[in-house]
Amino acid sequence: MSILFEKLALVGVGLIGSSIAQGVRNKGLAGHVSVATRRAETLEEARKLNLADSYSQDAREAVADADLVILCTPVGAFEAVMKDIAPVLKPGAILTDAGSVKGHVVKTLGPLIPAGVHFVPGHPMAGTEHSGPGAGFPELFEGRWCILTPEAGTNKKAVERLSEFWGALGSDVELMDATHHDMVVAITSHVPHLVAYNIVGTADDMETVSKSEVIKFSAGGFRDFTRIAASDPVMWRDVFLTNREAVLEMLGRFLEDLSVLQRAVRTGDGDALEELFTRTRAIRRSIIDAGQETDAPDFGRSHAEASREGTGKS
Amino acid sequence: MSILFEKLALVGVGLIGSSIAQGVRNKGLAGHVSVATRRAETLEEARKLNLADSYSQDAREAVADADLVILCTPVGAFEAVMKDIAPVLKPGAILTDAGSVKGHVVKTLGPLIPAGVHFVPGHPMAGTEHSGPGAGFPELFEGRWCILTPEAGTNKKAVERLSEFWGALGSDVELMDATHHDMVVAITSHVPHLVAYNIVGTADDMETVSKSEVIKFSAGGFRDFTRIAASDPVMWRDVFLTNREAVLEMLGRFLEDLSVLQRAVRTGDGDALEELFTRTRAIRRSIIDAGQETDAPDFGRSHAEASREGTGKS
Repeated sequence: MSILFEKLALVGVGLIGSSIAQGVRNKGLAGHVSVATRRAETLEEARKLNLADSYSQDAREAVADADLVILCTPVGAFEAVMKDIAPVLKPGAILTDAGSVKGHVVKTLGPLIPAGVHFVPGHPMAGTEHSGPGAGFPELFEGRWCILTPEAGTNKKAVERLSEFWGALGSDVELMDATHHDMVVAITSHVPHLVAYNIVGTADDMETVSKSEVIKFSAGGFRDFTRIAASDPVMWRDVFLTNREAVLEMLGRFLEDLSVLQRAVRTGDGDALEELFTRTRAIRRSIIDAGQETDAPDFGRSHAEASREGTGKS
Repeated sequence: MSILFEKLALVGVGLIGSSIAQGVRNKGLAGHVSVATRRAETLEEARKLNLADSYSQDAREAVADADLVILCTPVGAFEAVMKDIAPVLKPGAILTDAGSVKGHVVKTLGPLIPAGVHFVPGHPMAGTEHSGPGAGFPELFEGRWCILTPEAGTNKKAVERLSEFWGALGSDVELMDATHHDMVVAITSHVPHLVAYNIVGTADDMETVSKSEVIKFSAGGFRDFTRIAASDPVMWRDVFLTNREAVLEMLGRFLEDLSVLQRAVRTGDGDALEELFTRTRAIRRSIIDAGQETDAPDFGRSHAEASREGTGKS
């Protein structure tokens, strides 16, 4: 593919930053990739992975002369980073981010953007439960959505160029209002994470059932929650601190529905239970049909692995 | 391996019954495998899969002369099946089941067991979100736990022989009190399923976020819940109808913890959030170390698939 930006700067090289760097270099989408991260050991890890053309602990140094700057740190660090780099951003540069929350980012960063810099907030909806530069891989964004939430007055050309960039990394791009975005992710991502963190915490706290029993017998459903509840703690702390309103609204609905379900269990209303369980199964089917999941059953390992394991277990 | 039982009868050939049949036949653990299921089309599917030596829509016919009988229907059907087959069970036979709830099964079936038949309730803790004979595979139980909950007076030899049987299918066997079992599965399996069903239902009901948006943008966490919420509706209805007390107790604890978490979000208590999220991540690690899950990141497809997809997506 052809070069879309002469110089790309990534501030933060965790799972997302590392995956962007790898995808961009694999496909030759930038003439130069610079990465910045505060911690020396993370930068060293990035260097060992050969993620970039230049490395720096100083974000200012990394973003100087960059045509595209992507903030890939946890959302809570955005404001400080922005105050630091604003004076050195190149006029005409596009600034975007990979944060999971958009309303807060628009409100916080908006006033700090220098004139002549095009700010297009973004959210690549892709990830795994692993974090750090070593967790990244170039295909992370393929077939996944990237939502951009430009404000009404944003330079159209900048939005187009950024859309083309994410498209080249394999993503489908959708434009959306920042407030609506925050509601969509509250129900599809933030509340599911909160609930998963909560149930894993509850299980960790039992007296009647020991922790070792919870771990031993986790294959019946609990295990799947622990995958989600293993996501990066700082990133998720920042998500809940910055998308509070939407999360609390969706959590309220979830709790209302759970009260109804709790009553159905208490009163032994089998018809209501079966009706819900049948309806939710159909939604799963839609997600597979939409290409957002494979139909392969997940039971903690692949069939092939199971065969290799044979009966030789401990 | 050598034959452990001359004749094995499976009543019900869904995911579990089918997987037992395939494992037993692959390893030669029984001289004869008979299966029974009420519906003609399910039986036909079992026949096409060559699951057994004999097939019947009549459970009495299937269990006649059997040395080991395993009830593999949903728990709600156990009582009727038992009343049907009790008169023809062979003296000395071992009767067990694969139900996810044990207290209720002991209470319901206990009084119906004929003298001379050894009743050893069981729960193979393995499964996928798929159901029906075609969903079964012989490795399902390998490296997974099978819990047996014999009462104090149960014939020791019968418990040993059944333990050996599950061991031969690859499972680790644990003996446990039925009441304790029901608490363990309430927190590791039943409440996680209830919560997953509930959140998928909530998302299906939104006005502010459309259903198509929920499906499109499901990769951020919601998708994982839909897998659990795609499990067999009748089986799960029966689980909640028969393990009500333990489920309500564990759900109460879950809700108590969720109120604390909800308040942390509302008050912006970042330290409390980060502390919980860090703790839950460690539990994930323990589950992987215990061999109940692989560490491979799950993002809806394997890396290999992602590479094959390339950029040629729609």
